[in-house]
Amino acid sequence: MTTTELITQIKKKKSFLCIGLDVDLNKIPNHLLQEDDPIFAFNKAIIDATHQLCVAYKPNTAFYEAYGIKGWQALEKTINYLNKNYPEIYTIADAKRGDIGNTSTMYAKAFLEDLGFDSVTVAPYMGKDSVEPFLAFKDKHTILLALTSNQGAFDFQTKTIDGLELYKQVLETSKSWKNSENLMYVVGATKAEFLGDIRKIIPDSFLLVPGVGAQGGNLQDVCKYGMNDTVGLLINSSRGIIYASTEEDFAEAAAKKAKELQLQMALELS
Amino acid sequence: MTTTELITQIKKKKSFLCIGLDVDLNKIPNHLLQEDDPIFAFNKAIIDATHQLCVAYKPNTAFYEAYGIKGWQALEKTINYLNKNYPEIYTIADAKRGDIGNTSTMYAKAFLEDLGFDSVTVAPYMGKDSVEPFLAFKDKHTILLALTSNQGAFDFQTKTIDGLELYKQVLETSKSWKNSENLMYVVGATKAEFLGDIRKIIPDSFLLVPGVGAQGGNLQDVCKYGMNDTVGLLINSSRGIIYASTEEDFAEAAAKKAKELQLQMALELS
Repeated sequence: MTTTELITQIKKKKSFLCIGLDVDLNKIPNHLLQEDDPIFAFNKAIIDATHQLCVAYKPNTAFYEAYGIKGWQALEKTINYLNKNYPEIYTIADAKRGDIGNTSTMYAKAFLEDLGFDSVTVAPYMGKDSVEPFLAFKDKHTILLALTSNQGAFDFQTKTIDGLELYKQVLETSKSWKNSENLMYVVGATKAEFLGDIRKIIPDSFLLVPGVGAQGGNLQDVCKYGMNDTVGLLINSSRGIIYASTEEDFAEAAAKKAKELQLQMALELS
Repeated sequence: MTTTELITQIKKKKSFLCIGLDVDLNKIPNHLLQEDDPIFAFNKAIIDATHQLCVAYKPNTAFYEAYGIKGWQALEKTINYLNKNYPEIYTIADAKRGDIGNTSTMYAKAFLEDLGFDSVTVAPYMGKDSVEPFLAFKDKHTILLALTSNQGAFDFQTKTIDGLELYKQVLETSKSWKNSENLMYVVGATKAEFLGDIRKIIPDSFLLVPGVGAQGGNLQDVCKYGMNDTVGLLINSSRGIIYASTEEDFAEAAAKKAKELQLQMALELS
């Protein structure tokens, strides 16, 4: 999907919500455990109930790898279901990969071509030649970790290098990489006050913002400091939506929570 | 496996060689493509031919993910084969993972518990709470990316923060993390001259050293600057060994290349 198509969807749905499909078998409703593939059954119900309220879904691959082969099958079924039934939805493989050149190409091919995700999250530590292989895929995005939502972000990301914090170095340096127009960045909602500075470096790029809700980030603050002319934000919520109820009404409960966020987003867009 | 057991194996075999099982279907002998599981058939033959010459195997997960479900099955079969037939071998999942706390726990469980690897490589960008979940596993190691073997290492890793390069900050900071005795570090052989400084910060830790051979690193230099009282090195070679021949004699050819490296290592240990 192109950036322009994503923006069109955001305007049409009045939503820049991304729903994190972080499925934990210990947290889903009990009755689903009798299904052949409880993870996919859960995702399918959540997607069917919420797809009009969000523009993107983001499975975190850790939750699927944790279940081995069955987990990968559920991931494959989920992305295939999305691509077949809701092609207007933007998809993010939250994989946080990154390796030396040839090896990054294999990851990129796996997520962007074989599985058919629109984008994949990538860690910047190994530098340019570990990220450019992802950027080479046409009409796909690479979402680079910049400033993450966790406490550990302060260990290295906010430390100053030559007068500029590491996460700002990542933003600044990555702009010069080949096909950098395919970059988006992860910036945690728990650090909304940093967004003003971030926008000075990358005014036009889309930001994927985790940490609203369960992790304590605030939607209004993120919009205040992070929104640009073309919205430029995808705000992710996972647990707050998908685990809104652990009963048979889990999908409706998720839709209700998603609707609350979508209405707040519609206000921000108006 | 404990560090002490690993050192015992190194002394017994006079080898600190790690063989990278980076299996690419375009590079393995043609006759194997007729097998039910060509990747596993290749790995099994390589392992059977080389296990007395090395102390560790390191599959890079990208090469398995690239083949989807079948790739994961091959990875599972490979680690099960190693753990069942050669329990004295140290195993490394070269996955370069790292995420927020709970999510890192899922990755750690997947690789260290469910798949049963002895260790997993982890990226440090997200800091302490993204790495500590891996360190919590008893008799397992977390191998943190410090200074990687690729050109992109100079984009961020060697930049100076408060008078200390980022990779040294990673070494220094990680020493204070909980269960840091379970840490090893990735230091590329292409940057052997950095090893002296690295040893000042982490004199006792094991280093996993990629980049000898195909990437241009030199074994003698790595030993000169990086070896400590308990050896403290695992030197990885992938392509140079496993693709020594693309004919039916591929396993013997791999053993011959591994033997050459092992003999050089025996000299360094004498």
